[in-house]
Amino acid sequence: MKKGEFSFIGDIATMFASLPHSGFEPIGDDCTVFDMGDDALVISTDMLVEDVHFLRNISSAAEVGCKSLMVNISDVSAMGAKPVATLLSLSLPESAQGEWAEAFMREYYAQSEKYGIALVGGDTTASRDRITINVVAIGRAAKCNIKRRSAAKVGDLVCVTGKLGISSKGLVDNMFGDTHTAAAKAHRRAQARVTEGEWLGTRGEVHAMMDISDGIASDIKHIMEQSAVGATIELSAVPTDYDIRYAVTGGEDYELLLTVDKDSFDTLAHDLMAATGTPLTAIGHITEGSTLIWLDQGTPTELSFEGFTHF
Amino acid sequence: MKKGEFSFIGDIATMFASLPHSGFEPIGDDCTVFDMGDDALVISTDMLVEDVHFLRNISSAAEVGCKSLMVNISDVSAMGAKPVATLLSLSLPESAQGEWAEAFMREYYAQSEKYGIALVGGDTTASRDRITINVVAIGRAAKCNIKRRSAAKVGDLVCVTGKLGISSKGLVDNMFGDTHTAAAKAHRRAQARVTEGEWLGTRGEVHAMMDISDGIASDIKHIMEQSAVGATIELSAVPTDYDIRYAVTGGEDYELLLTVDKDSFDTLAHDLMAATGTPLTAIGHITEGSTLIWLDQGTPTELSFEGFTHF
Repeated sequence: MKKGEFSFIGDIATMFASLPHSGFEPIGDDCTVFDMGDDALVISTDMLVEDVHFLRNISSAAEVGCKSLMVNISDVSAMGAKPVATLLSLSLPESAQGEWAEAFMREYYAQSEKYGIALVGGDTTASRDRITINVVAIGRAAKCNIKRRSAAKVGDLVCVTGKLGISSKGLVDNMFGDTHTAAAKAHRRAQARVTEGEWLGTRGEVHAMMDISDGIASDIKHIMEQSAVGATIELSAVPTDYDIRYAVTGGEDYELLLTVDKDSFDTLAHDLMAATGTPLTAIGHITEGSTLIWLDQGTPTELSFEGFTHF
Repeated sequence: MKKGEFSFIGDIATMFASLPHSGFEPIGDDCTVFDMGDDALVISTDMLVEDVHFLRNISSAAEVGCKSLMVNISDVSAMGAKPVATLLSLSLPESAQGEWAEAFMREYYAQSEKYGIALVGGDTTASRDRITINVVAIGRAAKCNIKRRSAAKVGDLVCVTGKLGISSKGLVDNMFGDTHTAAAKAHRRAQARVTEGEWLGTRGEVHAMMDISDGIASDIKHIMEQSAVGATIELSAVPTDYDIRYAVTGGEDYELLLTVDKDSFDTLAHDLMAATGTPLTAIGHITEGSTLIWLDQGTPTELSFEGFTHF
């Protein structure tokens, strides 16, 4: 559970802190970690609600099926683990119990098959009018490969995979009815960095890692808080084909945000490209303290826009 | 995942059967089982939807919080495992984001504390108008203690814990506005057989086990199908304080339905009572074949009512 998701009803994490943990790590990362000795399971859950996270007249059933799986396995991949299984709960109004449900499941299956992910549980139920989807993703990794938000070190380079901003540009395109742009389609059909996440998990020079679900301006703060460090980010280094605001504060890119030992960056980026075809870009570095500094061509600048907030 | 819950969109279990299982057992029981060597995790998920599973003007937030946890850990207990952790996803309309959410969480915490169950993950999101709750329950057991629906043997006694029918009598009371009867309150505040389930898991003379969520008339068929056996049940032996129809076809009692080696029944019932204070009643026996026979005082009878069907 990410910290703050329950903030509207007080600090639930504190409330439950005194109960036995039974081998599960306390809250703070993309996933909970369950210790099995040499290996660990990582487990994450996310809920998608019609008219909050998707609109049925814009996103197809297949696109919702893809996204439901991807936003969840992205959390698993961001810990350096391999996604192995999901549980799927669906609450469906009558209007979605036939063709919609079939198209949803076909795509959910196709994406599961692509990565060899089992479906091991679930629930289906009626709903009065809107669709609600809950997915639980379970991953597995050697315990020493698991990457945490708390592992950033002063001097690390702050890096991102791929390019940022396409999903939030696409959200805007969809909102204005431009549903056929590349960005609009990318927004509706997220892809998690499954191969890259597991691969980066095996590399010791990768310290902290998480997925970019709310935009780097918001997500870097989780690493800063959990690692008790500051960060400096150079806006001109952020890889994007779109307006820098989309790239910095746009949510749902599902790229990876990681901190890397600075002497190992060149080798790591080269090896990641060779192994997966995905670029790794350094956009800043980890500092002492607790401040986030933005640079524009080396000059400190104020960021006049904040990270995307779900709900 | 229970078989049939996805029947409206075809046989999903078959669709996913060819994907790697990664240590998870195929679908068929209350929970999926994850093999860890000597021990196993069992994992189950259930979704509760406002105006389908509960009405906000009848069930209090605390009652919904209690029920959300109990229906899930009941599945874990029915496998003979100890519930150790849950993940909770909440989709809340504005009208439920303040006091309702706080009262819900206080009771969810109180029930978790009672059994020492950690909260290890979750998600919260907005909703346009109705509340949706998804809970994942995780249990742990020695692998040899896990009870499956497929383990019934010809000659076993069919047994139930406690008394049946109070929840469905309470559902009717609530529907007619009699919200203050003992049955009405029991319906709104389900209690899983947590202690009994784990205790029964340790006893080798217990063969098949599951929880009674849809009524024994419906649930016994899962054991029959998975174990490839028949059953004979004596209606006059079914323990209830209410109309036999409530006791046989009423859902949501969350008592345990189990099959027991017949020579061990007396000792088992005595020991269960001594350990937990809960009675165990034999109501029939397992037969060869695939037929379910109902007896009324020893005379075969037709059951003119069927098990409760959720959606």
